[in-house]
Amino acid sequence: MESPPLFDLKAYLQSKQQQVNDWLVRLLPPAASSRIADAMRYSVMAGGKRLRPVLCLAATEAVGGRTEDALNTAVALELIHTYSLIHDDLPAMDDDVLRRGKPTCHVAFDEATAILSGDALLTLAFQLLASPNGTTGVPADRLLQVIHAVAAAAGYEGMIGGQMADIAAEGNRIALSRLEQLHLMKTGALINAAITTGAILGGGTAEQIRHLEEYAQNIGLAFQVTDDILNVEGDPAIMGKAVGTEESRQKTTYPALLGLAESKEYSSQLVENALTALQSFDQKADPLRAIARYIHDRNR
Amino acid sequence: MESPPLFDLKAYLQSKQQQVNDWLVRLLPPAASSRIADAMRYSVMAGGKRLRPVLCLAATEAVGGRTEDALNTAVALELIHTYSLIHDDLPAMDDDVLRRGKPTCHVAFDEATAILSGDALLTLAFQLLASPNGTTGVPADRLLQVIHAVAAAAGYEGMIGGQMADIAAEGNRIALSRLEQLHLMKTGALINAAITTGAILGGGTAEQIRHLEEYAQNIGLAFQVTDDILNVEGDPAIMGKAVGTEESRQKTTYPALLGLAESKEYSSQLVENALTALQSFDQKADPLRAIARYIHDRNR
Repeated sequence: MESPPLFDLKAYLQSKQQQVNDWLVRLLPPAASSRIADAMRYSVMAGGKRLRPVLCLAATEAVGGRTEDALNTAVALELIHTYSLIHDDLPAMDDDVLRRGKPTCHVAFDEATAILSGDALLTLAFQLLASPNGTTGVPADRLLQVIHAVAAAAGYEGMIGGQMADIAAEGNRIALSRLEQLHLMKTGALINAAITTGAILGGGTAEQIRHLEEYAQNIGLAFQVTDDILNVEGDPAIMGKAVGTEESRQKTTYPALLGLAESKEYSSQLVENALTALQSFDQKADPLRAIARYIHDRNR
Repeated sequence: MESPPLFDLKAYLQSKQQQVNDWLVRLLPPAASSRIADAMRYSVMAGGKRLRPVLCLAATEAVGGRTEDALNTAVALELIHTYSLIHDDLPAMDDDVLRRGKPTCHVAFDEATAILSGDALLTLAFQLLASPNGTTGVPADRLLQVIHAVAAAAGYEGMIGGQMADIAAEGNRIALSRLEQLHLMKTGALINAAITTGAILGGGTAEQIRHLEEYAQNIGLAFQVTDDILNVEGDPAIMGKAVGTEESRQKTTYPALLGLAESKEYSSQLVENALTALQSFDQKADPLRAIARYIHDRNR
């Protein structure tokens, strides 16, 4: 692993998160204007790292573009991510009552409102993607390309297909290749879309976009592997269970399949691959490099 | 009411429905490729009059455009309509077990699959709207305008907002103005979008689009009023209940608010307004005229 550069990731993330939150507040329906407006705001403003928007904006910067041109898309990706969480939390799905320490949407409101506010956020995302607002410098055909990429990533061949596969896999131990495929669809596809659409909007070349796609695939998986590792190491009781009786766990994890040491090794390799994919980029890709290193440092 | 022209509406509807169904079969994920693909196909191909696609294509023709340029949009509107039915039928919403005589999606599959296949159809609609396939003759900025209009009509200020209002109104008698507002959002917005986007894609002028919008608003409401009338006249037992104890009905209807005779009068007036809005169009708008007359004839 290279030594960390003199780049203040924490300040960068805070500034980008602020930019994204400011735009979200402006775009969401006004508070108290209707019950659905309240439910939409409640879920979107419940916190979150804004990972997809930040990656989108960082990719725009990496190819020398203007972040203003990618802000609508960055925010649309967060709306899509939020809708997917609302629907995944529903009783018919994961049946979660808490998210980020707050009641989930169907608990704070009701199930019908949660279903409809998820639908409304997904729809608003596409309204935003097709809006001229904030993307005056971007040609219309490029915006169409972005909408197509986001829809494909969020749809039945991407995120939704991954959620279906996740439900089907619950309670069963699945093979590494199927676990990888599931994550590539469920979370990888939208992370990939965030980075490639950022690059498209920033005017990146086909070669730059190809390199960034490789970066995206690797950090998407690295995030998942690291999450699985932290889940194990964060709680020795869970770890014991995971090591001893993986088959009794609801969901298959990397440590359960590969063991802890090999999972860490795998995560390092993925981050290394992501950094290698950025080799031809100049210092404008430093935020993307710092994000990749941050993933690695989480599990040391 | 003018005398009916020599236009074979039945043949026209059949030919357009065939065109739409052929395109749908090609665009939906292959049967048996996955559980979600099966659920999407099941719901979309369960029948239906394809009203929104037909109106979209007829509007394209009315302004002298090519229907091939509107086919993606026509089909996307049907995907959005179908997703809204799947979600409306869910136990947390209207809790319907049958639609068009067949088990609803969550009954035929399961609730999680129904939620996700609705999400997938909505997402696929936007993927299609942004796809160059079948719209080679349409400039990209016009396609963006169409995507924006469809999203706005389907979102929290349109169809979804109308469904929220419908749920809130259930069991309460609401005033005529609120009933009208509810229908304009719940079904009117998407019918309106079908017609205006058809006109946009066909290269209609701003004035033509304005006239078609007026046509759309009037036939959207006329459809609803006629539906309410047929529900009453189709079953005298229901009619007795509706006339005597409107407040005990789950949903407010036009006959309950206005009485049967005045509802028929109102429906005629709306159809008359729709035909007047088409006055400046030539015979290429005959399909739209015939559709408006058909609504009127239903309740004679």
